[in-house]
Amino acid sequence: MGIVVFIGAGPGSADLITLRGARRLAQADVVLYDALTDPALRALAPHARWVHVGKRGFADSTGQATINALMVKHAGEVDVVVRLKGGDPSIFGRLEEELDALSEAAIECEVVPGVTAAIAAAAATQRPLTRRGNGRSVSLTTAMTRSGALHASRSADTEVFYMAGKQLAALSRRLLEAGWPADTPVSVVSRAGWPDQLHSDHVVTTLPQASLLHSGRPTVVTVGAGAVPLSGIKATETADTSETAWRP
Amino acid sequence: MGIVVFIGAGPGSADLITLRGARRLAQADVVLYDALTDPALRALAPHARWVHVGKRGFADSTGQATINALMVKHAGEVDVVVRLKGGDPSIFGRLEEELDALSEAAIECEVVPGVTAAIAAAAATQRPLTRRGNGRSVSLTTAMTRSGALHASRSADTEVFYMAGKQLAALSRRLLEAGWPADTPVSVVSRAGWPDQLHSDHVVTTLPQASLLHSGRPTVVTVGAGAVPLSGIKATETADTSETAWRP
Repeated sequence: MGIVVFIGAGPGSADLITLRGARRLAQADVVLYDALTDPALRALAPHARWVHVGKRGFADSTGQATINALMVKHAGEVDVVVRLKGGDPSIFGRLEEELDALSEAAIECEVVPGVTAAIAAAAATQRPLTRRGNGRSVSLTTAMTRSGALHASRSADTEVFYMAGKQLAALSRRLLEAGWPADTPVSVVSRAGWPDQLHSDHVVTTLPQASLLHSGRPTVVTVGAGAVPLSGIKATETADTSETAWRP
Repeated sequence: MGIVVFIGAGPGSADLITLRGARRLAQADVVLYDALTDPALRALAPHARWVHVGKRGFADSTGQATINALMVKHAGEVDVVVRLKGGDPSIFGRLEEELDALSEAAIECEVVPGVTAAIAAAAATQRPLTRRGNGRSVSLTTAMTRSGALHASRSADTEVFYMAGKQLAALSRRLLEAGWPADTPVSVVSRAGWPDQLHSDHVVTTLPQASLLHSGRPTVVTVGAGAVPLSGIKATETADTSETAWRP
């Protein structure tokens, strides 16, 4: 029986994988990869068999069952199967379903962490997700529920929404309903960490205008303290603020 | 004028830095590094001048001012200054204060993201921070406020607390006050991603017992859905749950 190594490929550019991830990838006999993975990663494991399994976000259950079966099948045939996932496997990667399937088949697993999209977007835009004084918590949320309904909250100083790109108008309404002031800064980044990354600034009420620019691209939406350009945060950074208060 | 490159070194082991981070580190003339950084990273930039600035968590403002001044000084003398930070610079790294100081001095900056401790702990324990159905959001919080008061909330399905290791008994009380049921699973990981990582399982009321094991070590405390071992989550993973409901 082989081992299955889950590797977070990072958000885009191949050079945002970790050294450990690159080393383990180079040992792979078979690589099961998602649609979002940078093709340049292939150079790290040129002799492996690369199998495109095309899962992203909320894939249907048939797709997931097929991926599970493929992992088990290949682990029975080779020494090292790599399951390469965009971003980090533990954040919106449906890792638990794949670990469960391997556990049932008594197959050994390893998880190599990666850079998740929210962090990559913060680095690329130089807008830290936490800020001293008024940015003490950051929440990573998928705006989509299993039923397809959109959900938003105001629970942290900075809220980052994954997989919201197709529903920015609805997200804008939900943010208002959740109590975010209309003029709260919102930063939208698509293909975070890729050479063709795009970034635009909005407030909650003008968020729908971002749809055209970022259409059809993996998008991260950052709301609140972490969306503020640094020159904007300076005026308030010395003030003590309450848990979730937004002070423009 | 040189450039200052902020690099997330990842949570511990040197091989959890990204390829981009390793490449930029190799180009450094001067490296300003924190106490938490793995000494093995030095091999990636053996000819650079390594300067220990010893900041971690909530350093006092004198320390921060000194670091800012050192960055500006070195950027005026060499081509590439690397500011190496544990974890990811955008998450509890006080990055905004250092970027502001460089902006005022008109010094160019770059930020290379890294693997933050919460994600490293999830990978090492194979407990994904998000779970389909009942783990749709994860919040990263520093339990400590600037005044030293401890704060906890119940705003996401999974809450991860940084820098809480010294106050686990107080955190236990705050979690109860915030509405977490007494038997909510809590996973404690210290030195996440290092070879000597330690991991222990608790519930909210028994969290104080973790103090002895993890004493004096950088500690990440994960509460809620993301703390559940995978075999434990299976019974409820098909149920639709409300935003923050914990169902043991």
